Amino acid sequence: MGAPLDFYFDFSSPYGYLASAQIDGLAARHGREVVWKPILLGAAFKLMETRPLVEIPLKGDYSRRDIARTAKYLGVPFNMPKVFPIGAVAATRAFYWAADRSMAAAKSFAATLLGEYFVNGTDISPAATVLDIVSRLGLEREDCARTLDSAAHKERVRREVEQAIQRGVFGSPYIIVDGEPFWGSDRLDQVERWLATGGW
Amino acid sequence: MGAPLDFYFDFSSPYGYLASAQIDGLAARHGREVVWKPILLGAAFKLMETRPLVEIPLKGDYSRRDIARTAKYLGVPFNMPKVFPIGAVAATRAFYWAADRSMAAAKSFAATLLGEYFVNGTDISPAATVLDIVSRLGLEREDCARTLDSAAHKERVRREVEQAIQRGVFGSPYIIVDGEPFWGSDRLDQVERWLATGGW
Repeated sequence: MGAPLDFYFDFSSPYGYLASAQIDGLAARHGREVVWKPILLGAAFKLMETRPLVEIPLKGDYSRRDIARTAKYLGVPFNMPKVFPIGAVAATRAFYWAADRSMAAAKSFAATLLGEYFVNGTDISPAATVLDIVSRLGLEREDCARTLDSAAHKERVRREVEQAIQRGVFGSPYIIVDGEPFWGSDRLDQVERWLATGGW
Repeated sequence: MGAPLDFYFDFSSPYGYLASAQIDGLAARHGREVVWKPILLGAAFKLMETRPLVEIPLKGDYSRRDIARTAKYLGVPFNMPKVFPIGAVAATRAFYWAADRSMAAAKSFAATLLGEYFVNGTDISPAATVLDIVSRLGLEREDCARTLDSAAHKERVRREVEQAIQRGVFGSPYIIVDGEPFWGSDRLDQVERWLATGGW
């Protein structure tokens, strides 16, 4: 069995959400696991002197249309949230809290957060909303709440984001397969062939 | 037979080149023609406060890798030109000169220019180089040279670019199918399904 894929995404990224619905199934077809690594793209956007996609003239209007159309094309449930983009600091910190216990539980948690945001339109930026979802999934709300406030945990998440940027991650989704980077939900076809053939 | 597709591209765009190798065959499978419309993306980039892809931190390094990998994935011959990006004003003006005579001849001419640049590495920015290719293809060099210098023709090409931006074109390739816009060589799968189904 090959090394796991690294799946980087931002909880506020529609294309990250679209890829999240497909990446584990894709990897499983090739006997691979996936490690999910949520990041906060703000820091990368600063380096690139850019801003969230939907705020860019011309490209912003197109991207709203493309996201909805691509979701339908893939058959992934999607409704453009009214509040967009959002800050995903609480969701990201809570994810790594869950991941320290179980990657499988952390993925279910992330999938629930993404579904709440990109299907139901719930603003998942407040810590209270994130903690309600922690409770709903039967995870330990009090423990998570304490960890969200811990300076050591904040620092740990900051390091995760920093390391991602050092690996070249600048967008969402961003998938690394045996050292090869793939950016965008529209690169999953190449990820699949890379896994099947070992590269070209 | 449905309306022709509009295929917008910049002669300096690798992804535009990759799409140019596929778009006519794709359209033909669905009984459609394609009108090629080269543009100069500088004006759109100004509006978007961005710059050529390969000059953007993080994204630039990734994009060089992605372009070469995607070309191999598609089986399209490609060598990253040493001089990149280039100004494509002369090539663009010469294209519209050719298109006023025959869209088919203009496409062969454009394909030759793109192959010279993205396979052989020839810098196609100088008017003299463009005119050499005009001669090589048996087109009327002197007539083309006169037109490249004509104020009316310069104005006509400026208007083509302006109209493209007014239609929302902000990148290369950008394909409009029955009013529906698709940006990127990685949207050709959606273009194909759109042609097959009439949209979703």
